Amino acid sequence: MADQLSTVLPPECSESAFESALEAFRQIVGSEHVLTAPTEMGEYRDPFWHTDWDDYEASAVLQPDSVEEIQAILAVANEHRVPLWVTSQGRNNGYGGSSPRVRGSVVVNLRRMNRVLEINEELGYAVVEPGVSWFDLYEAITAGGHKLMVSCADLGWGSVIGNTLDHGCTYLPYGVDMGAQCGMEVVLPNGELMRTGMGAMPGNRTWNLYKRGLGPTPDQLFMQSNFGIVTKMGVWLMPWPETYMPFWVRAWRDEDVAAIIDTLRVLSLDGTIRMVPQVANTLIFASFMSRRSQWWDGDGPIPDPVIEKIARELETGRWMMRAALYGDEAVVEHRFAKVKAAFETIPGVEVWGTKSTPAEAPGLGHPAERTQAGVPDLEMNFMTGWYGGEVSGGHVGFSPVAPMTGRDALAVRDLMRGLIEGKANLDYLGAMLPINARSFIHVTMVLFDTANETQVRGAYDTCKLLVKEAAGHGYGEYRAHLDFMDLAVDQYSFGDHAQRRFNETIKDALDPNGILAPGKSGIWPASMRPSR
Amino acid sequence: MADQLSTVLPPECSESAFESALEAFRQIVGSEHVLTAPTEMGEYRDPFWHTDWDDYEASAVLQPDSVEEIQAILAVANEHRVPLWVTSQGRNNGYGGSSPRVRGSVVVNLRRMNRVLEINEELGYAVVEPGVSWFDLYEAITAGGHKLMVSCADLGWGSVIGNTLDHGCTYLPYGVDMGAQCGMEVVLPNGELMRTGMGAMPGNRTWNLYKRGLGPTPDQLFMQSNFGIVTKMGVWLMPWPETYMPFWVRAWRDEDVAAIIDTLRVLSLDGTIRMVPQVANTLIFASFMSRRSQWWDGDGPIPDPVIEKIARELETGRWMMRAALYGDEAVVEHRFAKVKAAFETIPGVEVWGTKSTPAEAPGLGHPAERTQAGVPDLEMNFMTGWYGGEVSGGHVGFSPVAPMTGRDALAVRDLMRGLIEGKANLDYLGAMLPINARSFIHVTMVLFDTANETQVRGAYDTCKLLVKEAAGHGYGEYRAHLDFMDLAVDQYSFGDHAQRRFNETIKDALDPNGILAPGKSGIWPASMRPSR
Repeated sequence: MADQLSTVLPPECSESAFESALEAFRQIVGSEHVLTAPTEMGEYRDPFWHTDWDDYEASAVLQPDSVEEIQAILAVANEHRVPLWVTSQGRNNGYGGSSPRVRGSVVVNLRRMNRVLEINEELGYAVVEPGVSWFDLYEAITAGGHKLMVSCADLGWGSVIGNTLDHGCTYLPYGVDMGAQCGMEVVLPNGELMRTGMGAMPGNRTWNLYKRGLGPTPDQLFMQSNFGIVTKMGVWLMPWPETYMPFWVRAWRDEDVAAIIDTLRVLSLDGTIRMVPQVANTLIFASFMSRRSQWWDGDGPIPDPVIEKIARELETGRWMMRAALYGDEAVVEHRFAKVKAAFETIPGVEVWGTKSTPAEAPGLGHPAERTQAGVPDLEMNFMTGWYGGEVSGGHVGFSPVAPMTGRDALAVRDLMRGLIEGKANLDYLGAMLPINARSFIHVTMVLFDTANETQVRGAYDTCKLLVKEAAGHGYGEYRAHLDFMDLAVDQYSFGDHAQRRFNETIKDALDPNGILAPGKSGIWPASMRPSR
Repeated sequence: MADQLSTVLPPECSESAFESALEAFRQIVGSEHVLTAPTEMGEYRDPFWHTDWDDYEASAVLQPDSVEEIQAILAVANEHRVPLWVTSQGRNNGYGGSSPRVRGSVVVNLRRMNRVLEINEELGYAVVEPGVSWFDLYEAITAGGHKLMVSCADLGWGSVIGNTLDHGCTYLPYGVDMGAQCGMEVVLPNGELMRTGMGAMPGNRTWNLYKRGLGPTPDQLFMQSNFGIVTKMGVWLMPWPETYMPFWVRAWRDEDVAAIIDTLRVLSLDGTIRMVPQVANTLIFASFMSRRSQWWDGDGPIPDPVIEKIARELETGRWMMRAALYGDEAVVEHRFAKVKAAFETIPGVEVWGTKSTPAEAPGLGHPAERTQAGVPDLEMNFMTGWYGGEVSGGHVGFSPVAPMTGRDALAVRDLMRGLIEGKANLDYLGAMLPINARSFIHVTMVLFDTANETQVRGAYDTCKLLVKEAAGHGYGEYRAHLDFMDLAVDQYSFGDHAQRRFNETIKDALDPNGILAPGKSGIWPASMRPSR
């Protein structure tokens, strides 16, 4: 099986030292769960990073099956000073997938820890391990006959824990402010096992019910960081509402995104809409429904008249919003009428939707209408093939956060479009995801053909330019790809980078050998800290 | 003015060393803002701790007016190794008021930093300093003509920031899961100034709109901890709903609290009720409406027949719930009908309420009806006089968290009542505050006459017993008085006290001299760490 060893080694580690570490890892997880051959490791590599580039290659992949194995792995890593990079499913595509920040790190992939440990219908929660995907959790809920919905991401193969730890968006009401997580179990870099919040009390009955504990609450400290390995997590599930009503808002003029965002803010602040909509432009929908080559084969970005044509032929408009209402039928009816009236004051805007129920949701036609009811799938993954098709399509996410105003919607759109078209020579595919009533994440899907090295390089270079330009306008990235993680964190420089120093002070205290995910979110352990 | 110096000194600090530190503090904040005379310092002492006991006496009180002064105070404290204890308004009554955990600490009270820095009506938020009370913020909103509501606590004199940092409950929709806070500015123990979340990026436009940043989010790490001094905070304000409808649910049988909690869980999980109700027993209401001596002058707790009599005469029932609905009139009407029908399936239970508006709320008769609309007052403070009257009434809070089930409501009630009546020989005054749909905080008001030393001692001793008994049943304190803070934290012992070690590892890294609030939430710096 191990056809050949990876030629990549951890930093400052001899071949023989690495072989000793690998042998120790094999003793812990079993040889079959230590992957070292490039063919086996391919699945745990950034799928969109150019194949000829080796900046973020791992030296091996380990797949432990228990907390005890993770603790033993940490002991070996501390002893041999081998950096680890932890992934759950490893599906953080668009931000680096399963690839480590530091070349030669050993990837610890937690797919085998895929148990749904508990589902409680009375109190509406589940407890999951890191390998549990949205599919797994949905299936466990369904198999148990529980009338509960999970707020899930667009792609069902992702890990519930992994997505949560990366601040990933989900779309149901509990996706607002990423609110579903409650309680964690964490293995610290020194191998100690900690439970957060009320879970810190043995036998406590509210670990997954109350979001804090006594004293400071560290849960969000383990998100987008390298301070620990989360091994269990509580996730709140929403009881089935009487009525579930997905709806759509379509605008035909590019400028209408401003009025849509302003209207949405008012309807979200007053509680009429409480979930995470997506306000996406023509090309986002086109990438999901077609291939680019069907529309345009010229050089450079698709010109506006062609976008206009796509908007009409695919009936997507220039911007379309997907959203949903949940609740008693009478309330949903009142709210839909209000939503429809409010958006339709914008000239030309159309609103439509159909009342449904949670039981009927799996049969709905559009994947968004299923996703917004907690029924996961993979259809949105088709988007990645916009340029390169199934074989070599790729993307990177550029995702700044903006205030929920029409003014900001236009400013962010113009900034993104200007640079992506002007500098990267690529199409602008943008979706605004209001994570709450006050702000939206502008997810920019920078799509490219991974077989086209110039195009890939241009995409990443443009993202780096965008990081700085967006920061200059007051918009910060909510999540960053490995390749510009440091640059993105550099922009958070208040108090001469006080936050980074704070994070690195904690890092050094918790992980003195610097073995856990060095460089994640720009947090470097003392031993690897760049001079700045 | 300085009639006499306090005779209390910081630990391991000579009189002359302390005098040098005081002189340095005077240089920073001005002599008039350095209080050392016991008469001046009285206001910054736990108001309910027995006057003859000096366990938690401060050596001085400083009142800085700016971030720069706070930074300078930290520099002096680090140089002289003087422990500081920070309070905002210093109104954490029932949990220690403004008193420090370590006798002889210098209290840094932030009442003078009382500026409302910003109110944004379009996006619904304010930015406040630590000295801003609920009254101050409410008045600033009103003065600005803003149609916004602040989720406030029962007593309007408390600090918005102080309450938030102590995990205090507030009652409007944004009080659910204590959700109003967004963005912080913090002075770290070494004097560095940090902004959290998006505020870490200079000029970022979403500091008070998006709850996270890039990388780990530390905000909740500064709550109930001693890792930094919060100097600014964003607080979300809710736009005025069309209709505001406070309502009441009254049950005449003591056992009905189970059915009330079960019904409330269902109505909260499905979103019908979204705010923080209070389900309180007869004596809670009686303490607010009368004095104990009107009802009973015998030894020991008030017997059940007398409670029954109070319930009828004051028309409080054995349990009464206060709550409110917010929203469009049509939605509120639908929901009230649903609420009424649901609770009135419990035999004998009555539900009533009156539709109102935010503009009318300040004129409503019952303080709870005003508080639930964000109109703060002080009327509830009358409760404290149950035993001792205005002059010597006191209380301590014992507040475990329980799952939102009727079974747990009965179990917690029985545990609390049994020990408070049986061991402390006091009355059982209990209120269940569902902080979300899944859990409630059982705030036990242990009331006593501070002039009766035996009674005060009995109250604290019983709380200590309760801490352990409740933990044995799986219920953990959400907040603890100075006098049993260590004991309460001791109960969070999972992984051989992994959480406490984690907290203390961070403490030592951020505050190597251990000068900031040593002992807060059982977190001790290395220099003062007890052998355990």
